[in-house]
Amino acid sequence: MSSIPVLAVHGGAGSISGALISSEVESEYRKALGLILEAGYAALLAGARALDAVTLAVSMFEDSPLFNAGRGAVYTSAGTHELDAAVMDGATLAAGAVACVSGVRNPVRAARAVMEHSRHVLMVGARAEDFLREHGLLFEDEEYFHSDLRLRQLCAARRGGAGMLLDHDVSACRSLSPDVPPLDEKNKLGTVGAVALDARGDLAAAASTGGLTNKLPGRVGDTPLIGAGCYADRICAVSCTGTGEHFIRLAVAKDLSARLSYRNIDLEEAGRQVIDNLGSIGGQGGLIAVDRSGFVTLPFNSEGMYRGWVGRDKIRRVAVYGAEAGRPEIYFG
Amino acid sequence: MSSIPVLAVHGGAGSISGALISSEVESEYRKALGLILEAGYAALLAGARALDAVTLAVSMFEDSPLFNAGRGAVYTSAGTHELDAAVMDGATLAAGAVACVSGVRNPVRAARAVMEHSRHVLMVGARAEDFLREHGLLFEDEEYFHSDLRLRQLCAARRGGAGMLLDHDVSACRSLSPDVPPLDEKNKLGTVGAVALDARGDLAAAASTGGLTNKLPGRVGDTPLIGAGCYADRICAVSCTGTGEHFIRLAVAKDLSARLSYRNIDLEEAGRQVIDNLGSIGGQGGLIAVDRSGFVTLPFNSEGMYRGWVGRDKIRRVAVYGAEAGRPEIYFG
Repeated sequence: MSSIPVLAVHGGAGSISGALISSEVESEYRKALGLILEAGYAALLAGARALDAVTLAVSMFEDSPLFNAGRGAVYTSAGTHELDAAVMDGATLAAGAVACVSGVRNPVRAARAVMEHSRHVLMVGARAEDFLREHGLLFEDEEYFHSDLRLRQLCAARRGGAGMLLDHDVSACRSLSPDVPPLDEKNKLGTVGAVALDARGDLAAAASTGGLTNKLPGRVGDTPLIGAGCYADRICAVSCTGTGEHFIRLAVAKDLSARLSYRNIDLEEAGRQVIDNLGSIGGQGGLIAVDRSGFVTLPFNSEGMYRGWVGRDKIRRVAVYGAEAGRPEIYFG
Repeated sequence: MSSIPVLAVHGGAGSISGALISSEVESEYRKALGLILEAGYAALLAGARALDAVTLAVSMFEDSPLFNAGRGAVYTSAGTHELDAAVMDGATLAAGAVACVSGVRNPVRAARAVMEHSRHVLMVGARAEDFLREHGLLFEDEEYFHSDLRLRQLCAARRGGAGMLLDHDVSACRSLSPDVPPLDEKNKLGTVGAVALDARGDLAAAASTGGLTNKLPGRVGDTPLIGAGCYADRICAVSCTGTGEHFIRLAVAKDLSARLSYRNIDLEEAGRQVIDNLGSIGGQGGLIAVDRSGFVTLPFNSEGMYRGWVGRDKIRRVAVYGAEAGRPEIYFG
């Protein structure tokens, strides 16, 4: 079997609007999305497995300070960073995930290590870190993950006695303290992810996040939970971003695969149904998905989702806002 | 709406055979299953919500040293106990779970606390313990969880090459009999769980486990993962037991609900399909499920599963082996 490779990536969804983010900041995000998309797609064109392409794309998000994953992860209420990630190989159903790990440079590679070097799927906390060190994962010191912007977000949340801040919740920050700078977006639901179909026809998905600003340490969202925030099988590959607890309650990623498998509907309709369902229980966010025929869908119910994709037409696309914002999708590459 | 209440419970599946367990031990298990079933069912008859009935039943499993959950939890490779549990209310999709927590007497009540006192679904590790202490959960010292039998199982697992011997545990092992006594079962896949339909027509599911003997600390199986080992919605309630990683890869509990929702099949057929699918990827174990009409199914592909149920016929049943073992189901009560 030889398929035309397909790749989709996302850098989080939320109340992203042109009124709140500057064109310079928007350009930075678009540029980063384009570079990550191009690197992952080039790998697929060169024969890389879907599993390797999604791992590469997500690790590049993690290396960027722009996104809430890896280096750019937000602070917990304890002033620490707790990182979650997952990866799944649709061809074999092999999966790996980590949650509440600190210091590892690329949580998605940590998830791969759990998948490849243990008999387990999910490992959490300090003992997972021990396992990762034994298997040679790269660790960074606290300075690597430090960000003045992220720390001010945490301080604002603490001073206001607010609960958790969704990543870059600008209105909350402004109401709490005047010295919190204007942020690039409001209510960004910070997760990053990638899904791919490779030339062999195999599918894979990956996801990574730093969670919520000021979250309780020990909290695990949907990102590292197979079937909730990430899923891949022989039918489709799915990676989600949004209000994690809602995604867990609906097992959104698995639900998309199930609707596609058990109902006589296409990927776009299945995606629309799960996002409708998410909205019906108060959930916000979106997902990216590709099916075994190479169809791609990127539905979301928030104002925007940082995303990029290359479908079967081989055209690179990068977009931020929803179509309802009246702004055309912008083509990249 | 007024339904006839329905309850099913299980105490784990595995290679349970009459050749390996004595009739005295078998009687102990049957008696415990019967008492737990009776208590949960009595609560439902008295008007308890399904959510409360499954919490009660699972907490009774946790209080018994016979089952691998709470007090009877197996040892990790570090000679510790790490407890996982989940609970889900099908009426609201509210869910709570804990993983890798130590010392809490009733992990299922900890899961309830996460559901009711946080905005999260899953909390893990020491920081989850802090949260649970703040919310008044009962903790026990290490002695409460100690069991000579479980420690001998750990030693046996280590001798079998499943893990490394830690120095500080060698003396403890040697002070015990050098021979592992005939265990109550071989390869028991220890989880406990309960599913219920209450008089209002609401469904709920709960699950709890100590995991695998000699597991790496930090490993999380399917039990606390909503959609994998435990799920409830308005369609059905499901609680699983078995080789956890396989259940995660298939998102078994959610898959059962999805098949029932999206295919024109009944609960028994949906249960058969997911267990067949589990077997096709090498997974072993079983599940208990009840649907909104009060039908119950308890399929498994291992030799036995400790289980009890009261269906719409109001007859209490307790069983251990599969029908294929040529032993009739035994009626209780």
